[in-house]
Amino acid sequence: MNIKITCNYLGKILLLVAALLLPSLGIGLLYAEWLPALGFGVTIAIMAVSGVLLTRIKTEDKAIYAREGFIIVSLSWVVVSLLGALPFVISGEIPSYLDALYETVSGLTTTGASILSDVECLSRSILFWRSFLHWMGGLGILVFIIAIAPLGKGNGMSLHILRAESTGPTVDKITPRIHSSARILYGIYFGLTLTETVLLLFGGMTLFDAFTLSMGTAGTGGFALLNSGIASYSSYCQIVIAVYMMLFGINFNIYYLMILREFRQVRKNGEFKTYLCIVAASTAVIATNIAHLYESFGEALKHSFFQVNAIITTTGYSTANFDAWPELSKFILVALMMLGACAGSTGGGLKVTRAILLLKSLKAELKRMLHPQSVVTVKQDGKPVEQETLNRVTVYFSTLIIISVVSVFIVSFAGYDFTTNVTAVIANINNIGPGLNLVGPTCNYGFFPFYVKIVLIFDMLVGRLEIFPMLLLFSPAVWKRR
Amino acid sequence: MNIKITCNYLGKILLLVAALLLPSLGIGLLYAEWLPALGFGVTIAIMAVSGVLLTRIKTEDKAIYAREGFIIVSLSWVVVSLLGALPFVISGEIPSYLDALYETVSGLTTTGASILSDVECLSRSILFWRSFLHWMGGLGILVFIIAIAPLGKGNGMSLHILRAESTGPTVDKITPRIHSSARILYGIYFGLTLTETVLLLFGGMTLFDAFTLSMGTAGTGGFALLNSGIASYSSYCQIVIAVYMMLFGINFNIYYLMILREFRQVRKNGEFKTYLCIVAASTAVIATNIAHLYESFGEALKHSFFQVNAIITTTGYSTANFDAWPELSKFILVALMMLGACAGSTGGGLKVTRAILLLKSLKAELKRMLHPQSVVTVKQDGKPVEQETLNRVTVYFSTLIIISVVSVFIVSFAGYDFTTNVTAVIANINNIGPGLNLVGPTCNYGFFPFYVKIVLIFDMLVGRLEIFPMLLLFSPAVWKRR
Repeated sequence: MNIKITCNYLGKILLLVAALLLPSLGIGLLYAEWLPALGFGVTIAIMAVSGVLLTRIKTEDKAIYAREGFIIVSLSWVVVSLLGALPFVISGEIPSYLDALYETVSGLTTTGASILSDVECLSRSILFWRSFLHWMGGLGILVFIIAIAPLGKGNGMSLHILRAESTGPTVDKITPRIHSSARILYGIYFGLTLTETVLLLFGGMTLFDAFTLSMGTAGTGGFALLNSGIASYSSYCQIVIAVYMMLFGINFNIYYLMILREFRQVRKNGEFKTYLCIVAASTAVIATNIAHLYESFGEALKHSFFQVNAIITTTGYSTANFDAWPELSKFILVALMMLGACAGSTGGGLKVTRAILLLKSLKAELKRMLHPQSVVTVKQDGKPVEQETLNRVTVYFSTLIIISVVSVFIVSFAGYDFTTNVTAVIANINNIGPGLNLVGPTCNYGFFPFYVKIVLIFDMLVGRLEIFPMLLLFSPAVWKRR
Repeated sequence: MNIKITCNYLGKILLLVAALLLPSLGIGLLYAEWLPALGFGVTIAIMAVSGVLLTRIKTEDKAIYAREGFIIVSLSWVVVSLLGALPFVISGEIPSYLDALYETVSGLTTTGASILSDVECLSRSILFWRSFLHWMGGLGILVFIIAIAPLGKGNGMSLHILRAESTGPTVDKITPRIHSSARILYGIYFGLTLTETVLLLFGGMTLFDAFTLSMGTAGTGGFALLNSGIASYSSYCQIVIAVYMMLFGINFNIYYLMILREFRQVRKNGEFKTYLCIVAASTAVIATNIAHLYESFGEALKHSFFQVNAIITTTGYSTANFDAWPELSKFILVALMMLGACAGSTGGGLKVTRAILLLKSLKAELKRMLHPQSVVTVKQDGKPVEQETLNRVTVYFSTLIIISVVSVFIVSFAGYDFTTNVTAVIANINNIGPGLNLVGPTCNYGFFPFYVKIVLIFDMLVGRLEIFPMLLLFSPAVWKRR
């Protein structure tokens, strides 16, 4: 492990995040929210000073390998979370540091689970910071850095970071240069966020609400501005948000292909088609299942469409208390929680492509049992998939289940019911937000004892960074000096 | 697919099972239970006639491949279940055929889940048949056939069958000849069953109770003779049963090694040691957690030891209503349900060795991420494990989870609560028996609608035959003529 160079990069990241805190500080000053503004100011100062100190650590040995890439990503997520929690504490709006940390990690990992029972008493700049965390975490802090300035010479380092911070089992470089890829990704991200803001403004929302909610949609986060979630906005606004949640759950490469007018390739993409089919089918089944609870089928359809997209993309916004829906609908939502959106999107969960590869691995295994001597190859979108990728997917899924089971085990110590414990872990590790029962869409996570919060914080980070970078942080082999 | 030879083997199996029904018929006649005796007589007749007809199907093409092996196993389990349900219906003791089928599959797969609310009104011969199903299904019907008479010449066919019917990711042939291996396995099985019976007789049990309960322990089944389960027997009997449950959860190869006095190899067996540690640790944690519910710590320890073994071996006997225990204890039991006992035992669940291999796969994956160029090998008990075995384990686990999630989805249609739905599926697919809430240890599965019962019947068979043989039954490729 090249500790010096890791520190150097960490310093650069802190300097960037300090800059990214400036808009929140600006809003604090604009609305004369002095305590939050102080919080942002102090945090910016701490980040800037430690950033400068860390970037001073120089080394001759500039060689960087996979381990440094992973550790820089996981370490910077942990450090940004630890420091990003300070504005909440200093402003006095979340006095407990652990609660503030939970809220920050929930923001950054785009989970959107909150420890607050009342968000309407928060100041505007703090609300903005919560949603800004979603926006930063959605595509990734480090991908953002790569987009503005390449880290070091060549592609090596950037590729390792892109791998560790992006979602999905493989990383498709849309252009040979990672720097350009990151720019295109952030360009699309920006564009979609801005069009959503404009469409929400047409619906009569204030600029602050429209932009803040759009950032939460973009990162598939889910922090709301009102205690009632999205329920009090007009149907038009709800539908705009639902559609944009769906859009942010799509692999961003699809948009790039659309810009290039490569529609044949878009049509060939199995994950994209499966995702749209799942959204359509789930919406239809749930709408039918809950129709009797609403005045009209249209109303039921709207709630169903909204909730399906909120859950499959792991955003977690809500327009209705789905914990009161029939068991079937609730179960479909829990299954969608675990499934998640497309690889290469800002959504969490397992990802549709991994689910497809899991099923294909199973089919290949059955074939192998029938014909033990023959070579079985798995294809996706017409191209053969390497056995190594398949193994990685099954190991990934198995590890996710194991970490979930261990987490539920620890959460069980607190003595709450089975449904609460299981869905709390599922909702956190898949970066969704609301679960069922005591952690349902009208509830929050504030009541859990400290050790449950620590487990859930770990789970959120494990979910967002897709397990391995976080686990490597605890591997003694990684920390050995070279 | 060689359909003719498959039918021929199926015929032989039916003839054997017809013979295995004779003891139950004898008990029916002995206790003058005429209706059950009629049921057994009719079933024996049907099996014998169809057995004779099927064995008449001859073919020149005696070649047998993996697919025939798998299909013979899964098909014979389905056919024996379908016919084995007849005595319950004809005797009038379970009038609904679907319920009778559920009970039969639950018996044969050693699940021990029941649709009956009152087992004390059953006749003795029917009670005996229920537990005899456990005993047959424990080590496997076809392994029994191999033990008495080799199927065909050479090892080929027998090896395929042993692979499909035994538990665990790999099959260790304890002797080069499968026929001898099967004899040794059944010898150990018989010996353990008889010593348990004798020890229970010392505790003052009647011969009928002692032998029937021992068969249920041996198969790690769990059908009881009293509505109170094992609770009304003396502490001595409860402890004997608990110890034997633990013993039947151990890989039978360990006993063979002990007979050969190869203690060094026993000590080297990682699964065996891990299994004992898990039993000890779980017993200790649960005993501490439930101590306040019982008069003395000894009493709590006894219940904890009994329940841990009943659940980890997936027997499912109960001495206490563990659904009323604290959440932590309940969760440990649910985790043990999923874990299961050792490979090569009569227990269900994932199996300890698979869990160990899953963790090792994860570790190997982390290593591979750190050193993308290097070759990473996984070792177990000092020997390298083939990558193919590791893949099979992760695919197995992933498939188990997928089938469980789909099952819970269908079960959710019935509208019961999340805990009931989830634990019902876990308890059936892992061949345990009782779950939590509405399917807790004091409840039964009779209230579920027909489609839930069908799903759970499928799950039990999937669990017992370890997924792939059952899935192959539905593969069109298998049924193609050669």
